[in-house]
Amino acid sequence: MIPRLYIDAPLKTGAAAPFDSAQAHYLKNVLRRAPGDEVRLFNGRDGEFAAEIAELKKKGGLAGVKAKTREQTSEPELTLYFAPVKRGALETIVQKATEIGVAALQPVLTGRTVASKLNVERLQAIAVEAAEQSGRLSIPSVGEPIKFARMFDGWPENRRLLFCDEAGDDESAEWGGREGRAPPLLEALKDHRRNTDQWAVLTGPEGGFAPEEREALRAKPFVTAATLGPRILRADTAAISALVLWQAALGDWIRP
Amino acid sequence: MIPRLYIDAPLKTGAAAPFDSAQAHYLKNVLRRAPGDEVRLFNGRDGEFAAEIAELKKKGGLAGVKAKTREQTSEPELTLYFAPVKRGALETIVQKATEIGVAALQPVLTGRTVASKLNVERLQAIAVEAAEQSGRLSIPSVGEPIKFARMFDGWPENRRLLFCDEAGDDESAEWGGREGRAPPLLEALKDHRRNTDQWAVLTGPEGGFAPEEREALRAKPFVTAATLGPRILRADTAAISALVLWQAALGDWIRP
Repeated sequence: MIPRLYIDAPLKTGAAAPFDSAQAHYLKNVLRRAPGDEVRLFNGRDGEFAAEIAELKKKGGLAGVKAKTREQTSEPELTLYFAPVKRGALETIVQKATEIGVAALQPVLTGRTVASKLNVERLQAIAVEAAEQSGRLSIPSVGEPIKFARMFDGWPENRRLLFCDEAGDDESAEWGGREGRAPPLLEALKDHRRNTDQWAVLTGPEGGFAPEEREALRAKPFVTAATLGPRILRADTAAISALVLWQAALGDWIRP
Repeated sequence: MIPRLYIDAPLKTGAAAPFDSAQAHYLKNVLRRAPGDEVRLFNGRDGEFAAEIAELKKKGGLAGVKAKTREQTSEPELTLYFAPVKRGALETIVQKATEIGVAALQPVLTGRTVASKLNVERLQAIAVEAAEQSGRLSIPSVGEPIKFARMFDGWPENRRLLFCDEAGDDESAEWGGREGRAPPLLEALKDHRRNTDQWAVLTGPEGGFAPEEREALRAKPFVTAATLGPRILRADTAAISALVLWQAALGDWIRP
């Protein structure tokens, strides 16, 4: 198994590339690698390269960049807007969303968000690790939290929002328990075509969306509301499910 | 928020229902409930009932069962066969699969499974908790691990297996990197109709399936092989993704 690492530096055959101290530690002490061993490097813009470890020290390391192994690719233009939830579920969202293939992750503070402090730097590190392990050549950005009321400031005209309108206020978990329940997600997407719009997905906190948020969302012409089955999903399960279904219906899980 | 609890005892309006010591502790000391407070109870066969807490003691408790609030429903006949993975991911699989709506969970020891000991009782408890929180009226069973070679003993004739044939041996994470790669999961299911067959989903360990396992699976007439996008998914992400797509294409995530 050849380690795959993200490097925030230019990559070019024949040049040297730096490891930071955490990467040098990881390669040396966790994976037990030494100078001469092979790694794969990517930086989110130049593609993926084979490289040979040249030096591993406490403060960092160096690799010699060899042949390009893959041309740069990018993920579909899909952003996940999500209400921060408690730590375990939050990290699950960032890790799984990166694997499933989002371009960006944007925390949104909704009315019912129980917003403890959010460590954006740590979430970004989780996204980098998930990108390294999933074979991605790009890293999704993790934004600083924004308020729900500011979410649509500067919203691009041709960008659609898939709003996961779960039955948060609904006593019954069964279909039809609430009037005007949104259609199942795959059904909601069936009239949309691949590569015609940018998309975003919005999922709520454990307590769901407030009635006024739901109304504001449903009033926007670019919003498609959808539901995710007859059971009540946790916030992280809902986010993962919506991204998987979007990717399978309109994204790069379809064969090119 | 009315607590929802699974009780392994008959439920009938006007009768009493027992809490075990863990439930009594949870209601009293975690949720701060007291006699007179309302709960919802289900047992996997009689439907869901409103009930009033009558007694909460160290060794257990009692509730008075009131009106039936929902008729019994069941989940689609879908079993997840999965290779045990490390603890965090394993628990994620059991929790999310229960929410997404499987009827049963069956650990399978494949050749590349790094099988530490499996605490089936603990996994069953996670399934019960996820069922309680998701509004399910049934509890998925968690089986004792079986060997891959025994997986098809007594396999029902009309039961199909959706085999998630990820690119475990594939250096490149891109489409077409390997000859004969299986189609995307939604595409693989498009000729199947709802309610015609029983189904199972099979996902592998972190290291993927061994070549001989893959061959054995592909040779079975009831196996449908499928893939989950161009990136490499972790074992838990793959299991969750496959179940979500099956539910949305053939299961109860479709409107009735």
